[in-house]
Amino acid sequence: MKNILLLFLIIFFSANLLSQVVTSPNGNIELLFSLDKKGYPSYSVTYKGRLVIKPSELGVYLKDKESLVFDFQINSFEKREIKESWSPVLGEQSVIENHCNEITFYLINKKTSKKLNIVFRVFDEGIAFRYEFPFDKSVEYFIISDENSEFNLSGDHKAFWIPGDYDSQEYVYNETKISEIDISKLEMENGISLKTIKSQHRVQSPLMMKTGDGLYLNIFEAAVDNYPVMHLDVDVKNFSLTSNLVPDALGNKAYLRTPGETPWRTIMISDDARDIVSSKMILNLNEPCKIADVSFIKPMKYVGIWWEMHVGKSSWDYAGTQSGDNNPVLKPHGRHGATTENAKRYIDFAAKHGFDGVLIEGWNTGWEDWYGNWKDDVFDFLTPYPDFDLEEVNRYAKLKEVKMIMHHETSGSVGNYERHLDRAFNLMKKYDYPAVKSGYVGRIIPRGEYHDGQSMVNHFNFVARRAADYKLMVNSHESSRPTGFHRTYPNYIAAEAARGNEFNAWSNGNPPMHETILPFTRLLGGPMDYTPGIFEIKMNIYNPQKKEQVHTTLAKQLALYVTMYSPLQMAADLPQNYEKYPDAFQFIKDVALDWQKSIYLEAEPGDYITVARKEKNGERWFLGSITDENPRETVIKCDFLSPGKNTWRQFIRMAEMLTGKKTRSIMR
Amino acid sequence: MKNILLLFLIIFFSANLLSQVVTSPNGNIELLFSLDKKGYPSYSVTYKGRLVIKPSELGVYLKDKESLVFDFQINSFEKREIKESWSPVLGEQSVIENHCNEITFYLINKKTSKKLNIVFRVFDEGIAFRYEFPFDKSVEYFIISDENSEFNLSGDHKAFWIPGDYDSQEYVYNETKISEIDISKLEMENGISLKTIKSQHRVQSPLMMKTGDGLYLNIFEAAVDNYPVMHLDVDVKNFSLTSNLVPDALGNKAYLRTPGETPWRTIMISDDARDIVSSKMILNLNEPCKIADVSFIKPMKYVGIWWEMHVGKSSWDYAGTQSGDNNPVLKPHGRHGATTENAKRYIDFAAKHGFDGVLIEGWNTGWEDWYGNWKDDVFDFLTPYPDFDLEEVNRYAKLKEVKMIMHHETSGSVGNYERHLDRAFNLMKKYDYPAVKSGYVGRIIPRGEYHDGQSMVNHFNFVARRAADYKLMVNSHESSRPTGFHRTYPNYIAAEAARGNEFNAWSNGNPPMHETILPFTRLLGGPMDYTPGIFEIKMNIYNPQKKEQVHTTLAKQLALYVTMYSPLQMAADLPQNYEKYPDAFQFIKDVALDWQKSIYLEAEPGDYITVARKEKNGERWFLGSITDENPRETVIKCDFLSPGKNTWRQFIRMAEMLTGKKTRSIMR
Repeated sequence: MKNILLLFLIIFFSANLLSQVVTSPNGNIELLFSLDKKGYPSYSVTYKGRLVIKPSELGVYLKDKESLVFDFQINSFEKREIKESWSPVLGEQSVIENHCNEITFYLINKKTSKKLNIVFRVFDEGIAFRYEFPFDKSVEYFIISDENSEFNLSGDHKAFWIPGDYDSQEYVYNETKISEIDISKLEMENGISLKTIKSQHRVQSPLMMKTGDGLYLNIFEAAVDNYPVMHLDVDVKNFSLTSNLVPDALGNKAYLRTPGETPWRTIMISDDARDIVSSKMILNLNEPCKIADVSFIKPMKYVGIWWEMHVGKSSWDYAGTQSGDNNPVLKPHGRHGATTENAKRYIDFAAKHGFDGVLIEGWNTGWEDWYGNWKDDVFDFLTPYPDFDLEEVNRYAKLKEVKMIMHHETSGSVGNYERHLDRAFNLMKKYDYPAVKSGYVGRIIPRGEYHDGQSMVNHFNFVARRAADYKLMVNSHESSRPTGFHRTYPNYIAAEAARGNEFNAWSNGNPPMHETILPFTRLLGGPMDYTPGIFEIKMNIYNPQKKEQVHTTLAKQLALYVTMYSPLQMAADLPQNYEKYPDAFQFIKDVALDWQKSIYLEAEPGDYITVARKEKNGERWFLGSITDENPRETVIKCDFLSPGKNTWRQFIRMAEMLTGKKTRSIMR
Repeated sequence: MKNILLLFLIIFFSANLLSQVVTSPNGNIELLFSLDKKGYPSYSVTYKGRLVIKPSELGVYLKDKESLVFDFQINSFEKREIKESWSPVLGEQSVIENHCNEITFYLINKKTSKKLNIVFRVFDEGIAFRYEFPFDKSVEYFIISDENSEFNLSGDHKAFWIPGDYDSQEYVYNETKISEIDISKLEMENGISLKTIKSQHRVQSPLMMKTGDGLYLNIFEAAVDNYPVMHLDVDVKNFSLTSNLVPDALGNKAYLRTPGETPWRTIMISDDARDIVSSKMILNLNEPCKIADVSFIKPMKYVGIWWEMHVGKSSWDYAGTQSGDNNPVLKPHGRHGATTENAKRYIDFAAKHGFDGVLIEGWNTGWEDWYGNWKDDVFDFLTPYPDFDLEEVNRYAKLKEVKMIMHHETSGSVGNYERHLDRAFNLMKKYDYPAVKSGYVGRIIPRGEYHDGQSMVNHFNFVARRAADYKLMVNSHESSRPTGFHRTYPNYIAAEAARGNEFNAWSNGNPPMHETILPFTRLLGGPMDYTPGIFEIKMNIYNPQKKEQVHTTLAKQLALYVTMYSPLQMAADLPQNYEKYPDAFQFIKDVALDWQKSIYLEAEPGDYITVARKEKNGERWFLGSITDENPRETVIKCDFLSPGKNTWRQFIRMAEMLTGKKTRSIMR
């Protein structure tokens, strides 16, 4: 009798726990989690009853330890609803709602008794899951050799993808079917100097897709900290994606401890593309702000000594290709951009037009042999070139009430940067720099590490945290792409981490559709320092030999200030080019950087995007609308405007400015 | 006629340059350099007409470039005599003579036109050579994949060797024939926790040898900076040694640039063993002091909270094996050594007996899970444990006129240390710590690097240089072994980098011959913080279960202060043990740390060593004499004493104190 009862209990228990369904608050999305006979955990997802993610396995392989992949049983599970709202320090909207249903499965391995929790959150616009490793004294420290997170797609969707390069995301997007993803067929003369591609069928996330029947799908991750970036291996026959974690020098993926967890893996789903671009799921999956006093975090509109180097008018280096170490007395070539005089010119320009800041690149010694040598001790982040009077430039900036933006190019020599970081930040504090733009162009040192590996993710986050100690803001270039960490450290104000406007100056450039895709991919993780505002789009004006041009219209360059959300925005072009177009330039001067409200009015990845935003602490609305290479006409319903507060006249004036030859917005 | 003349010239030129001989100033050593028909460079060495190094190849393999190994011709050569003297900041003697004949061979590769210089220096006590890479714009940055420096011995010599472990030198010495070197036969239960041995027939340098006919031979290196440590691969059949450079995470050996050079490879030779231990060749091959103001570099005699942890009376950690991160509120176990109270006890003791400093280990948070976890963020070097009042301890030390010695254990997490270094040094300056003892116990992070690799060599030297900026002295433990870098940065006052006295407390310990070998090996590169002065040699006094003991006599512990040169000397035992033997302790209190003159009176590796030293700025002489496990009687001729200045009585009193049961020195 006792045995029979036990058997009954087990059956009941197992039957009850072998699968579970969780639904989104609005009921559109259903997540099914289950264990198969062998104890493999898997999940599937439907949207409005349509299967979007077919049963897909979950699990983690450990190094030198028994893996957490099968033989599981569900010990218990826990459900809760999360419903809260919070206010970002800076953002697209002043209040963000976080509403989802969460379920945690407490798994235990039947053979090893090792525990693994899998947590799901189901939002209206998608689902997220992460692995948790509960405290276990016997495996307090462990190494992840691989993660087995599958995303089995329901069909051969259209995808907007870039190659799964461990060192760069600065690619143009390819728009193909999943079955057509093949890196070996890409043109690789694309201006990217350091490429680390290990597989022909590997892409980066966020991966934006569209199904044949009009669903929009996006696979990404959130809250990546102390973990490598997840790329996606593509099975082009079965339309199945699998997590690929960027390895370290030894081929290991992540060094973790218990209790610990992975980042969130996210799948956004909607039949309306605007739900994807406006989603705050990624931010909601990150930890709340950890900076007590955020008063130093402020939006910034800036100009700088930068584009003139890209177009070849001046150079970062002071003495050409001479090696600083070999020639202690450098011979200036006379084309150095970051001179005291030039800096003052930009400061004057910034002051005259009300910009917050001036960035100066190439101010410090080391540029003579900074790139391509895998050199350890490249920059000291402290020593200005002889023609750049740090003291005087900062005195002048203070006089003109303009803030200077520091520049720290590391050349990928990260150990060297960390060795100098306190000194470099102290120098910034001495002169009252509020922000630093950092750069990571080149192969990483410690050698063997990649830009997207765990140690580099940790480095980027470490710099943000240490900068917070100093009350400094960070804008990283060539970092791993953000995944919402700026919710936790909002002083990490922006990043590049995608193909920016600069590529238009000296490579095959960015096709017109590029900026219609970024809001569906790169921008989901955080603001991008895209450096728009190029008015002089033809490079042959600087040099008759140069055939490059920005693939844009002037109107589109303006619209980007609205469509590409960032609280840090550069007016990237040269002062003289702005002075030629005072009307258009006025828009850059006027546009807000921090928003009370953002309304994505229309959006289609690869085609167009239109967004209206209302400034924080003001009544002004701004509308940005861009298209790809195809002209289009669109009708915008302006019922979002508050009668009596927003004048039509004012709004239409801006809208006119935003409309270019290709896009024409009509107000109703 | 023109052709004939040309041919003649070539023959003449080649014949003239195919081999060259350089002789030591005293004529005892002859170095022959030659190129064979295929353009392989090689050298051989004779001592008093006896062949000591048979023809041995030289060369360097480059990664992804044509190697610098053969096809050479001698473009030209240059000879000069170096004869100079200099005064070390601290040392065994106040003036050091540097006298040698130097020859530089300017080689050029006949096929590739690449240049390589090989420089030899021939001293009375040995030879040295290095590779120089002249500036070449086309290979300004390059990677060394291997170095081919051979040392072909003339016979199956006796050798004192330790395994070629990339992460540790903390081995006891093996005394075998070259042909008997075999790491696979060693007992590896030796207390060394991290071992990285990649070959059965690889040993470390310095490698001390003795030939069958009574010649002493030592192979080592000098001025290792920006280069990995050189180990030696042993051909046990042909008695040939070849350089083995410690690789980085990618298997590369060294990242260099032109102009650049390797460290010096050294061979000391004499028929008198005393010439080896007293040689200043290694120091002479290093660069002169680069610190302008050396006034902060002072010898130090210190006690500390340290041995009590080794013997198990107290612990470094405050809360046992609890994980600090998992238990933010640590529960103290009550056995923590570094308490405010205990610190004051040591400060009182130091003040009472005239010690310069007090070291306190375990003062800072992080020890709960510091070891064996390959943990990145282990220590912050800033936060004291709750029971250690940093402010109060330092106030008390100042009051008592005792200097505190800081302790920075890194656990091998070097990136983390570098990230905190400025902060840690600033904390030291705030409280006026003059010196830091650093530790590197554990696997290195960046992961994949070894203690002896180029990046770690650079780290150790970087810390010394940065410490010099702060006017701080460094005493590193578990670093790569020194090669005379303390001539250039004399604030790098001492290092461990060999098996210290501590192993006697908790492992199979150090055999009595250990300290008779160290002066022939480890000490050639720089002072060792051996931590002598253990009066209570039986560990069962602390715990009846413990069978360990220091393999010594009390007299020998005293003698080590003289035989093991270091300007930093610890009286390592517990205060209560010193208070039991006030007479013997008086010697530790009296012994000088910095010397005008040192006379090695007798020396035989593995057997005995006797040295007399005269203090700097004083007339006191100290004599230390130790033996191995065998008793011996020796007659010391004291004609080095200055009549009228050194009283016999005074000297004999000390000599009596130094003589133990096994060694008896008789003054004449």
